[in-house]
Amino acid sequence: MIIIGEKINGAIPSVKDAISRHDEESIKNLAVAQEKAGANYIDVCAGTEPEIEYETMCWLIDLVQSVTETPLCIDSPDPELLVKLFPRVKKPGLINSISLEGRKCEILLPLLRENPEWGVVALCCDQSGIAESAEVKVANAFTLIANAAEYCVTPDRIHIDPLVLAVSAVMDSGMQFLEAIRRIKEKYPTVHVTAALSNISYGMPARKLVNTAFLTLAMEAGLDSVIADPLNRDVLGALYATDVLLNRDRLCRNYNKAFRKGLIGTPKK
Amino acid sequence: MIIIGEKINGAIPSVKDAISRHDEESIKNLAVAQEKAGANYIDVCAGTEPEIEYETMCWLIDLVQSVTETPLCIDSPDPELLVKLFPRVKKPGLINSISLEGRKCEILLPLLRENPEWGVVALCCDQSGIAESAEVKVANAFTLIANAAEYCVTPDRIHIDPLVLAVSAVMDSGMQFLEAIRRIKEKYPTVHVTAALSNISYGMPARKLVNTAFLTLAMEAGLDSVIADPLNRDVLGALYATDVLLNRDRLCRNYNKAFRKGLIGTPKK
Repeated sequence: MIIIGEKINGAIPSVKDAISRHDEESIKNLAVAQEKAGANYIDVCAGTEPEIEYETMCWLIDLVQSVTETPLCIDSPDPELLVKLFPRVKKPGLINSISLEGRKCEILLPLLRENPEWGVVALCCDQSGIAESAEVKVANAFTLIANAAEYCVTPDRIHIDPLVLAVSAVMDSGMQFLEAIRRIKEKYPTVHVTAALSNISYGMPARKLVNTAFLTLAMEAGLDSVIADPLNRDVLGALYATDVLLNRDRLCRNYNKAFRKGLIGTPKK
Repeated sequence: MIIIGEKINGAIPSVKDAISRHDEESIKNLAVAQEKAGANYIDVCAGTEPEIEYETMCWLIDLVQSVTETPLCIDSPDPELLVKLFPRVKKPGLINSISLEGRKCEILLPLLRENPEWGVVALCCDQSGIAESAEVKVANAFTLIANAAEYCVTPDRIHIDPLVLAVSAVMDSGMQFLEAIRRIKEKYPTVHVTAALSNISYGMPARKLVNTAFLTLAMEAGLDSVIADPLNRDVLGALYATDVLLNRDRLCRNYNKAFRKGLIGTPKK
């Protein structure tokens, strides 16, 4: 499983606060902690007002790069801003994101064509919003993959995000999502499928129960990448346990190692 | 999901102790607590030396029946003993168990033919032990269902247990088990498939991570009955959350109700 660490995001109140106070240590700590917990990419998102987004992103990117070797996932709703930030990033990582909205594909795919070591997160939404049905999610995914192919961006560089809707609002949201994963992976076995899974439990109590069960189901369906908090023991525990059960962790080595490192299981007092 | 509450079992040290001290209150409390937590059946197993098994089972059955209305699941490796105990049970429940070992089928199936409101747990093992492969598990299940049919015992009365082996010993144990569930349910949609899932994590640390992920995967594959501890918040939480995600809990009503009753989620301080 590829883990995209989601903790450095200005939409999170404590991070928003650290950004406004120019608290370098907090940001650096979040980067190091996520790297230690096994993040494969560190997402960096300013989540602030557009007028200061560029400066904020530069500050965040520089800070994270000063303390970790983990590749970045540069995250903004503004494709032009991502192009502008691109030269600042030292190591190939992920662009987050393209979708079928606006000019995202035509602005960002040329950049990906020129930089074959970079990957991209592709959201299955268009002007009309997030699709509820597996059918539309899959159709959007196929269009995104076709668009990318026109710029020589192969499926193995794409992390398709079928987009999760809250199951409290859309009762078959989980089933539609799982079905979408299966169909996308069936047609494109090398494409990555990712998600910010915790949206599934929005509005429910005891959300971790729903989030962890959903991660398990999604992994069985073919999810091989996740936008998540690698410091969340519940999520990480479900991830390692599911890998064991799906026979993807020979002799339970990764599971046992994560337990010994104190990353999963009940924390020691 | 049908929950067979497993807590009244002499193989559990505290229960063994209660049996040896003739501690009626402990046994009654376990029965009432499991009923309140939503058990559909209360398993009763002496788990003691054969010479006192009959007396112990009588004592346990009478105690449980004195405090709950929940049907019993009478559980013994000795089919003759189950026949002897049968008249003592006031309400139709489950016989636990038949298998392809010895004369279990020919002793117990006639009793089930005469008592059409009773069900039975059927273990997918034979003289040679527990099958590792889905293929042999499924073949054993089909033989058991065919044997039952000869005595007019229909699939909907049978809880097939494909038997879980520890994944730490047999790396593809989870996958074989899930495959077996799918094939059994495909051929016999009305048969119940059950399991004592916690065997999967034997020998591993942080077992609840593996047990809950496995319950989720097994439910997706078709498990509709489980031999478990309904007082275990983790198991119950995974069960309710998975039902929501598989769109089997309209408007999350059962999930929210279980949360409000304090059965799932982090316990209140």
